[in-house]
Amino acid sequence: MKIAIAQLNPTIGDLTGNAQQIQAAAATAQSQGAHLLLTTELSLCGYPPRDLLMQPAFVDAMDRTLLQLAQDLPPQIAVLVGTVVPNHRSLQFGGKPLFNSTALLYGGTVQQQFHKRLLPTYDVFDEDRYFEPGSSSHTFELEGVRIGVTICEDLWNDENFWGKRNYATDPLNELVSQGAELIVNLSGSPYSVGKQVLREAMLRQATQTYGLPILYANQVGGNDDLIFDGSSVGLNRQGEIVCRAQAFASDLVLVEFDPISGDLQSGTIAPQPESEEAEIWAALVLGVRDYVRKCGFSKVVLGLSGGIDSSLVAAIAAAAVGADQVLGVLMPSPYSSDHSINDALALAENLGIQTQILPIGNLMKAYDQTFAELFAGTQFGLAEENIQSRIRGNLLMAISNKFGHLLISTGNKSEMAVGYCTLYGDMNGGLAAIADVPKTRVYSICHWLNQQTQIFPESRHRAGSIIPPNVLTKAPSAELKPGQVDQDSLPPYEILDAILCQFITLHKSPAEIVAAGYDSTTVDRVIKLVTRAEFKRKQAPPGLKITDRAFGTGWRMPIANRWLPTSHLPQPPVASSAMAMTSSVAPT
Amino acid sequence: MKIAIAQLNPTIGDLTGNAQQIQAAAATAQSQGAHLLLTTELSLCGYPPRDLLMQPAFVDAMDRTLLQLAQDLPPQIAVLVGTVVPNHRSLQFGGKPLFNSTALLYGGTVQQQFHKRLLPTYDVFDEDRYFEPGSSSHTFELEGVRIGVTICEDLWNDENFWGKRNYATDPLNELVSQGAELIVNLSGSPYSVGKQVLREAMLRQATQTYGLPILYANQVGGNDDLIFDGSSVGLNRQGEIVCRAQAFASDLVLVEFDPISGDLQSGTIAPQPESEEAEIWAALVLGVRDYVRKCGFSKVVLGLSGGIDSSLVAAIAAAAVGADQVLGVLMPSPYSSDHSINDALALAENLGIQTQILPIGNLMKAYDQTFAELFAGTQFGLAEENIQSRIRGNLLMAISNKFGHLLISTGNKSEMAVGYCTLYGDMNGGLAAIADVPKTRVYSICHWLNQQTQIFPESRHRAGSIIPPNVLTKAPSAELKPGQVDQDSLPPYEILDAILCQFITLHKSPAEIVAAGYDSTTVDRVIKLVTRAEFKRKQAPPGLKITDRAFGTGWRMPIANRWLPTSHLPQPPVASSAMAMTSSVAPT
Repeated sequence: MKIAIAQLNPTIGDLTGNAQQIQAAAATAQSQGAHLLLTTELSLCGYPPRDLLMQPAFVDAMDRTLLQLAQDLPPQIAVLVGTVVPNHRSLQFGGKPLFNSTALLYGGTVQQQFHKRLLPTYDVFDEDRYFEPGSSSHTFELEGVRIGVTICEDLWNDENFWGKRNYATDPLNELVSQGAELIVNLSGSPYSVGKQVLREAMLRQATQTYGLPILYANQVGGNDDLIFDGSSVGLNRQGEIVCRAQAFASDLVLVEFDPISGDLQSGTIAPQPESEEAEIWAALVLGVRDYVRKCGFSKVVLGLSGGIDSSLVAAIAAAAVGADQVLGVLMPSPYSSDHSINDALALAENLGIQTQILPIGNLMKAYDQTFAELFAGTQFGLAEENIQSRIRGNLLMAISNKFGHLLISTGNKSEMAVGYCTLYGDMNGGLAAIADVPKTRVYSICHWLNQQTQIFPESRHRAGSIIPPNVLTKAPSAELKPGQVDQDSLPPYEILDAILCQFITLHKSPAEIVAAGYDSTTVDRVIKLVTRAEFKRKQAPPGLKITDRAFGTGWRMPIANRWLPTSHLPQPPVASSAMAMTSSVAPT
Repeated sequence: MKIAIAQLNPTIGDLTGNAQQIQAAAATAQSQGAHLLLTTELSLCGYPPRDLLMQPAFVDAMDRTLLQLAQDLPPQIAVLVGTVVPNHRSLQFGGKPLFNSTALLYGGTVQQQFHKRLLPTYDVFDEDRYFEPGSSSHTFELEGVRIGVTICEDLWNDENFWGKRNYATDPLNELVSQGAELIVNLSGSPYSVGKQVLREAMLRQATQTYGLPILYANQVGGNDDLIFDGSSVGLNRQGEIVCRAQAFASDLVLVEFDPISGDLQSGTIAPQPESEEAEIWAALVLGVRDYVRKCGFSKVVLGLSGGIDSSLVAAIAAAAVGADQVLGVLMPSPYSSDHSINDALALAENLGIQTQILPIGNLMKAYDQTFAELFAGTQFGLAEENIQSRIRGNLLMAISNKFGHLLISTGNKSEMAVGYCTLYGDMNGGLAAIADVPKTRVYSICHWLNQQTQIFPESRHRAGSIIPPNVLTKAPSAELKPGQVDQDSLPPYEILDAILCQFITLHKSPAEIVAAGYDSTTVDRVIKLVTRAEFKRKQAPPGLKITDRAFGTGWRMPIANRWLPTSHLPQPPVASSAMAMTSSVAPT
């Protein structure tokens, strides 16, 4: 029996368009002899639909679209479609009004429904907000083969793999006891660095534990801050990969299930990106492309400072939407060094993107004049530095408003963490492309990029590298006052990023971080900066998530907060002011 | 037996400070003869602590602080304190790592723990993200009285009251069957208009159903976007209110439980605000005051346009932090009318706040010159209108940065809904004071305010009214081009606000709204504007929540979204671009 996986890229809420994609995939799959087509979690509306699920009209429209799709599908193929199903028992017995479900469409109708049982409610996931967990797992029979249906998290509860139990129930175990010969899983599993290695290890253990093959179909595409990497896979009873769809691209994969051996046969195995840098690059390009496209834009604009962050974002944008659709704006001030302009222009030329130069000196003077009386007798400081950044933010937004470009902001995760950025200035944008990329990783991706001859081959021919060598070697600087460099205000990025990872991703206490070998004054200072910058992050644009813990939907911190842990011996903490609008380390 | 309710105003994360407040309340209560002191939900860390709960060091510190508090409390009084308790079973059996609990402190130790059973995971609540529900309810005995302990949502599942069951289990029913003679409830229930009427009706029905008295202790104070109104109450077995703490203020209430009659005796009943306007005013004043204070500020700054929104926010700010701590900045442009300046100055004089006048004409010219070449041949439009708003936003932020004022933004809910506001312009601020107040309600609050002789009595003496009459009667205008008024771009506010309420709060479909009597073209246009403005709201400051559905933590919409419902007959919707950075109706 031939089975196809439609690794599609749905747009949230585009029910008609998503249904059309499923229909087209089903037609192709049937023409290639498939009896069954898997799609991904909530494939009809795209994952995650969030509070659209609270509009009854949206749920009704999904239902109508599903019934229409059942009729429009080719007759000879069964299709598993992700949709929501009302929980009619909720009024009488309590519980949430919807199930996160899979519908089996076949012969023009909905044959069967399967409800997701394990509902992730952590990190970026809010499923308990909307859904009631299914109370039991079910199989269906096709061509004499008994197939067990699971949805995403349903497979993420193997206590032997995780070393602990995540949920009380184990759907996989139940399906095995029901005689399932093959497990299918419809997923909407967002990307983070190394996630696919984890997924495949987990699936391998599951197949080996039960001696059952698994077909895992994952969504692909960017939806706001989340990037879905696809990489749908099939594993045979021995836990070997027998097929894999492409990473970060739509795909249709066919695989054969042999009812005699009760196993999946080997098929096409797309390679995974060859390094973490390659993986992150592909993720960010997809994330930018889809955000631009799904929001109805074609062109993007960004500020080019000659620094490494905006250089990388320009390259990502050019790869995402085409160099001719990217406008880089240089906004030099009297504090800008010559190399800033030259490096930015060299980068733009390497990429083949358009540029505009808008010096900000006159605007700075106009603000100085406006404040001449009110600021008389005060020293040049954060306020004046921020004004420069906000002038630039205004210029970029005016271009966005005037010509319809989407503004992409260029701040990295290290900056966003410690607040080394200006709210309403360089933070401006519809999307923050590298907001979850630590500064040290920005460097490693740029070094990697300069070695990839297949990316921007023409530019390579012209310049020898994409990111100008000087951008990689000069000291990072915001250039908001003479001679300023980042390391005046921040620890070296290697140390900063290590401390940030321990605190943000691993939830380590300051004392634990110090015990791991970091200087206590530095650790305490970094954590104070992170805590104080919460008000800035609250107003940041969506940032593409690539780590296990990104600022954004999976980071929910109070702003008016007096918990400020320090590396001192455990004791009830001393209250201290956790936030000030003026608390920038030295805003850029 | 005398029982006290400590209606305290905790600061999130300030474990030491919150413990000190509880200790002081216990000392006072004991000195007045109380045997038991109730505090509120998670009173040790403040509600809601959000992702601070993911830091093991925070949970450990709570535990240490609780044990220390138990020892520091006066010996003769039992105290119920809200805290978290580790769920040690979770590693082996699955589930979340913490319980949301109440600890009974008495005689220097933790005598007993009670876990919250019903975990709200809707609107602004995320409790399933952190907590495992308790599996059973428990009582304790004090002075021979059996007392049943519930936490907030535990009482919100009366199917006879709600007409449907919200949760499968009913803790109240279980406590009754365990012989409870009195029910206590520790709450962290955020304010919305009319919420206390709802709470008291619900509690009345519960007391009447079971013939049991209930003591309900609610948190007070502002925490970011949420305002807790306090209004803790006691109801006797007949469902009559026997005591009530103040609304929107800290309080300590004592009430007598008579073991003979098994009922609460009548005590002090603080009045509730006399109108919805009075209630909202008190809520917003508290919300602003606490955000300013808990973030470590003392002074605030805001832009004064002479319009009704900034006039109301200035009055709220003056009431919250004192007129002498408020700076109003007038930033007239060539498009500003004379009355704008005069009205703003009159308001400032009425309130007694400081003002600064910073004309923006020269800055507008400097931007025009900067863009002379790039924008040559284009028409004056949204880009130029937004530049004015963003100049003002920059000026306000520079003052905030220079002098340490917290910037309060002045946009109302109607504007935020349809995107009639400029991102990085008038949306700038650390807190959006009236972001959840519809424009029609802004008017009614201002009319109400002008009739309150006890608010700003000195100003009243000087001017006769707080809000200058002309502010109340002139047509609302953004004044970003000559002759502009809001109603050029928007339906009349009475109609707009009615449509917005139906769509946002009541989840009505466009067809249903049209059926309720609204013009279909207007309804479709409003809903399109709401959908397209999502990217702006994503970057808005926290806005004080006063309605059942506020934009902010309880509104989680995708940005790249093609679901755009219309009033046409039900059919699969047609995809359409849902967002554009340039989509302002006419930004202000």
